[in-house]
Amino acid sequence: MRPLRRKSDHLRPVKITTDVSSYAEGSCLIEIGKTRVFCTATVEKRVPFFRRHSGLGWVTAEYAMLPRATAERNRRDGRGGFVSGRTQEIQRLVGRALRTSVDFARLGERQVIIDCDVLVADGGTRCAAITGGWVAMKLAMERLLGRRILHSDPVIEQVAAVSCGVHAGVALLDLEYTEDSEAELDGNFVMTADHRFVEIQCSAEEGAFTRQTHDNLLALAEKGIGELLQIQSQAVADSLAKT
Amino acid sequence: MRPLRRKSDHLRPVKITTDVSSYAEGSCLIEIGKTRVFCTATVEKRVPFFRRHSGLGWVTAEYAMLPRATAERNRRDGRGGFVSGRTQEIQRLVGRALRTSVDFARLGERQVIIDCDVLVADGGTRCAAITGGWVAMKLAMERLLGRRILHSDPVIEQVAAVSCGVHAGVALLDLEYTEDSEAELDGNFVMTADHRFVEIQCSAEEGAFTRQTHDNLLALAEKGIGELLQIQSQAVADSLAKT
Amino acid sequence: MRPLRRKSDHLRPVKITTDVSSYAEGSCLIEIGKTRVFCTATVEKRVPFFRRHSGLGWVTAEYAMLPRATAERNRRDGRGGFVSGRTQEIQRLVGRALRTSVDFARLGERQVIIDCDVLVADGGTRCAAITGGWVAMKLAMERLLGRRILHSDPVIEQVAAVSCGVHAGVALLDLEYTEDSEAELDGNFVMTADHRFVEIQCSAEEGAFTRQTHDNLLALAEKGIGELLQIQSQAVADSLAKT
Amino acid sequence: MRPLRRKSDHLRPVKITTDVSSYAEGSCLIEIGKTRVFCTATVEKRVPFFRRHSGLGWVTAEYAMLPRATAERNRRDGRGGFVSGRTQEIQRLVGRALRTSVDFARLGERQVIIDCDVLVADGGTRCAAITGGWVAMKLAMERLLGRRILHSDPVIEQVAAVSCGVHAGVALLDLEYTEDSEAELDGNFVMTADHRFVEIQCSAEEGAFTRQTHDNLLALAEKGIGELLQIQSQAVADSLAKT
Amino acid sequence: MRPLRRKSDHLRPVKITTDVSSYAEGSCLIEIGKTRVFCTATVEKRVPFFRRHSGLGWVTAEYAMLPRATAERNRRDGRGGFVSGRTQEIQRLVGRALRTSVDFARLGERQVIIDCDVLVADGGTRCAAITGGWVAMKLAMERLLGRRILHSDPVIEQVAAVSCGVHAGVALLDLEYTEDSEAELDGNFVMTADHRFVEIQCSAEEGAFTRQTHDNLLALAEKGIGELLQIQSQAVADSLAKT
Amino acid sequence: MRPLRRKSDHLRPVKITTDVSSYAEGSCLIEIGKTRVFCTATVEKRVPFFRRHSGLGWVTAEYAMLPRATAERNRRDGRGGFVSGRTQEIQRLVGRALRTSVDFARLGERQVIIDCDVLVADGGTRCAAITGGWVAMKLAMERLLGRRILHSDPVIEQVAAVSCGVHAGVALLDLEYTEDSEAELDGNFVMTADHRFVEIQCSAEEGAFTRQTHDNLLALAEKGIGELLQIQSQAVADSLAKT
Repeated sequence: MRPLRRKSDHLRPVKITTDVSSYAEGSCLIEIGKTRVFCTATVEKRVPFFRRHSGLGWVTAEYAMLPRATAERNRRDGRGGFVSGRTQEIQRLVGRALRTSVDFARLGERQVIIDCDVLVADGGTRCAAITGGWVAMKLAMERLLGRRILHSDPVIEQVAAVSCGVHAGVALLDLEYTEDSEAELDGNFVMTADHRFVEIQCSAEEGAFTRQTHDNLLALAEKGIGELLQIQSQAVADSLAKT
Repeated sequence: MRPLRRKSDHLRPVKITTDVSSYAEGSCLIEIGKTRVFCTATVEKRVPFFRRHSGLGWVTAEYAMLPRATAERNRRDGRGGFVSGRTQEIQRLVGRALRTSVDFARLGERQVIIDCDVLVADGGTRCAAITGGWVAMKLAMERLLGRRILHSDPVIEQVAAVSCGVHAGVALLDLEYTEDSEAELDGNFVMTADHRFVEIQCSAEEGAFTRQTHDNLLALAEKGIGELLQIQSQAVADSLAKT
Repeated sequence: MRPLRRKSDHLRPVKITTDVSSYAEGSCLIEIGKTRVFCTATVEKRVPFFRRHSGLGWVTAEYAMLPRATAERNRRDGRGGFVSGRTQEIQRLVGRALRTSVDFARLGERQVIIDCDVLVADGGTRCAAITGGWVAMKLAMERLLGRRILHSDPVIEQVAAVSCGVHAGVALLDLEYTEDSEAELDGNFVMTADHRFVEIQCSAEEGAFTRQTHDNLLALAEKGIGELLQIQSQAVADSLAKT
Repeated sequence: MRPLRRKSDHLRPVKITTDVSSYAEGSCLIEIGKTRVFCTATVEKRVPFFRRHSGLGWVTAEYAMLPRATAERNRRDGRGGFVSGRTQEIQRLVGRALRTSVDFARLGERQVIIDCDVLVADGGTRCAAITGGWVAMKLAMERLLGRRILHSDPVIEQVAAVSCGVHAGVALLDLEYTEDSEAELDGNFVMTADHRFVEIQCSAEEGAFTRQTHDNLLALAEKGIGELLQIQSQAVADSLAKT
Repeated sequence: MRPLRRKSDHLRPVKITTDVSSYAEGSCLIEIGKTRVFCTATVEKRVPFFRRHSGLGWVTAEYAMLPRATAERNRRDGRGGFVSGRTQEIQRLVGRALRTSVDFARLGERQVIIDCDVLVADGGTRCAAITGGWVAMKLAMERLLGRRILHSDPVIEQVAAVSCGVHAGVALLDLEYTEDSEAELDGNFVMTADHRFVEIQCSAEEGAFTRQTHDNLLALAEKGIGELLQIQSQAVADSLAKT
Repeated sequence: MRPLRRKSDHLRPVKITTDVSSYAEGSCLIEIGKTRVFCTATVEKRVPFFRRHSGLGWVTAEYAMLPRATAERNRRDGRGGFVSGRTQEIQRLVGRALRTSVDFARLGERQVIIDCDVLVADGGTRCAAITGGWVAMKLAMERLLGRRILHSDPVIEQVAAVSCGVHAGVALLDLEYTEDSEAELDGNFVMTADHRFVEIQCSAEEGAFTRQTHDNLLALAEKGIGELLQIQSQAVADSLAKT
């Protein structure tokens, strides 16, 4: 049995609190079990050099953990000039996942920067960053639409993400840290509202895995992301209703 | 008149929520007006090399702002190998202020690291970090006392901090950002429960200031810190009552 | 039609030249079309701190491109203190893929470092690094077995890797650079000799992809890696026959 | 009794030798007891980006110690990409103190860089850097006035600085290193010729301090800075008389 | 007797393979004994800031060793932000040597970057980099002449380099690693086709050396470089004949 | 005619002031024309790892320029993590030159660090650093002998250095900056008291040079270093006479 009597295909409790920053164009705090990620979306008029004079926008992400987000304190990432490979890999994944949901011509020459800062880490932080980051980005776009800075919504897909893995031979949805750290196989999945995939990553931590195992994880991911997409939609609707 | 009809010798509303981290030995979220700082205290068995085999402990602090803690997004401090002078100055101040309240022999060869991460910055973040950092440190020590790891409380003083300044010729307590950015004179004050000082810093931003002006700021600081010390005590008492 | 009349499920010509370094315990130059990667395996007595006194070994990889490996010259990776996110992601993948093929107890407290330096890059360099890196590692282990430093072969799996993608709507095996840079979907696959997977990564570059498309790429990968595994085996056998 | 029979309210011997650099627009070597700081003022046509097209100038400072300025050799500050927090704090203080004495409109879009390099450190180096830095800056402005590059003197205040502290319960003016390293309370004070303050910094190193103690240090500082201002004036007058 | 019965005034076997890069404007692999250096010449339209709007070009060099180019693996140079003093000294020497052979007005505002990557290091790598770098540069210029981008050949001198030293009291031409590491005196010489010198560097590793010894090394160098110049000429001629 | 009617084979005025640091074991300020270098020798009990448990000592050097040592201000070397290639090349040369004059067994497991900080640079700073560095090192050894920490003098050679060059076709001794910056050929020479060489470096800045020119520079260097050796001896004798 999993901690808190959770079934193998159940998500942990998920809560998205929107509009948690006084300054950011869009923001939310996403909580999945004990994992908590503070997500802000900043819209800037500058674009990276490869987009200049193109009429097209860009979306990028930064990810970081507070030093005591984990059971043992970690050195601040970046202090000493060194951003760890893990951090870079995660923020590249988050940026890539969110970019596939955006029409850059509608965004115009603007850059959206999604900052995902992990306050507490208990597994699944990169997936929480994608799921929460999408909400922050969507709210930022709604604000620009509301102010008539944008004229049609650049967010043309809804995306969310979940981790799945195999632990003690059993395929599990939404691993928490104690499960993740002992998993034989670890996967991250990003999916759209019409159940197409944006990213599939499965890594054996030990040994190799069969095609059948891979298919089982895909099925779990599809179920879990389906639920996350509904929670996202509700959070966005509630935020818009308030304004 | 100040924003929100605040009087010149009034603090903004202050709220301290304790025990906000699943892992840290002590933690709190301190809110002063819109300013919000997430403070954790980590206790480690390692001490810096200058304390080894001394039987004495150490307290140090790290301070950082989330990139969108401000009206315009900032680059993550430390990324690119560069921690700004402002950040270093602040974390040295926070560490120094908290160290004066600790008996290092009672702490034994342990290091307490106070991490102060600014979620939203609206003036007074370094003072909030000291005031909240003291609460996180005190709670961490109480936890170690409760587990009988420590036998007498190393926290022998209570300290809190406030900023004061002169804006448009008027001496003001607890500057918010719009006041601070236009102040002629800017001061930070750290004081103990018996109204002795730990740190006094007054810097002219423009022109110079008289002894009388300096004395006026000291009086405002004494009043404001007195109130903060009571809010700290209440927060610690409430947290201990829960456990 | 693909360049050089290649069919959608055909690999480019592959050549593995072994023992190209005078010093390394194992080495090879792998050529896949125009792509050329120089792979060396170094065996050291030191292990990372998390393996000390464990009796277990470790395998890690470093990846780099010569500055003129590409059509336009790139800045040397790492000069200026900055190893790009792409490089870090690749070397983490190579290390992870090779580690799954090793029995660390048989290796003992030794570290194997696989250096993969790209002399010419024409797509598929990370997969070439895995495929060539495995050969270098295997030869290094054979040398240690020959010298009776090791008593049983730590290499318990054979792994190779290939990229697949969708370009202009067609699923293709082993993308070269011109195909890769315009692909809608890009995947990297690592597989063992018994056709189990070690790593599956599929990323939409644009839009999202269906489950069916994913399955098509998996089938192409399985075919291509099957051929690469034979070329690896032959290269190792030829090298051992010489000595 | 203090070393060399100095009284508690006496400065160490002070000597300012002007025009010690062949190239700098203004320069001096300031000696306070054994402490020696080499100060140069460089005038550049470039201003920082936040001053561009403003018609206003800027003053900034850099501070460094030669590695053997101290009893034990120190690593060169900055080598290895790391400028210590102490160094950054000092150079920010020096820059801020000198800026308050300048009319930036009269300076025009020019930057003055004050370099303060400590040849020998025996306490009070940051105050010596301010006192000597002001002389170097003043001489540089005189040179520009002499060449009719400037038409009215941008230096509208005279500033000097001194440290005071409490050692073994006694308030002392101008601490040397052996006193400073054991002080209970350490303060730095910057004052103008009309006895107004530019900066007041008092830090408890141990325990806290009363308002009365703070007032005693202010009185000592006022006396000491009064003497330093006269020595500065004489040094500037002597330098101008020579040309 | 030297290894492989080589006489004191004999070079090791030298081989230059041209056109080894698919992308670089000019390239070669130079092998001198076991030493192997991969040299590419890149021509860019950008020049360093000190050449802008001058009508003149520039030549610069970068040098690096693969981590396992040596008997023991080395950390990748530059990773961690630190390019070793030895590497910097070598690439400055290579750049300076090659620049003396170029007419920068004929080159026009273009920069040639010579990348010298050492695959295997067995002594004499900096001299091999100069000798091979010249071939890569010459071939790049021939290609630009062939495409009528240049109208007269900027390469107005031919230069090559060799190391000489004193080992066990005997003056030797072209030291290999085992000789170099025990040499009393170590020299590097760069010479043109008309036997004039571009660079002479002799460093005592132990004790000092007489004028006579210095003259003996100069004579050896002159003989060795004479042979290298012929091998360069042949390699360039063969490459041009193929096209 | 050279500036100040100096003849082609004349040194500029040279002055060595010893014992200029309160803390260093040995120190001097060397002035050659306008060039001024502050040299200190520090003796530490730690040796680099390659000397540990060998019974042998080590000598190393660091070189830096104050930012306004030159006509235009330079960025502080090392700030921003980057020590320039020129600086590294110079400090390697200084260290190598001084090491050849030391018997490391007599020194025992101690490290001597020679810091050479250029206060004013007017050509010849690296040679001044060697000449002054030797004096600082010699005085440090004398102090250790005087205190009976050492029992026989580790300084077994006397070395000094000078630059020579060809300017407007004329071979010149001891170039000052205006000559050096326009020289066709630039050389640095290090020689012992018995007229043997420790280092010979000649670099063409433009074109190449004949053997005859090289011989002319060697003769000039021999004359100039002969004079410098006498000035060094006198400075050391004067310092020892005082104690």
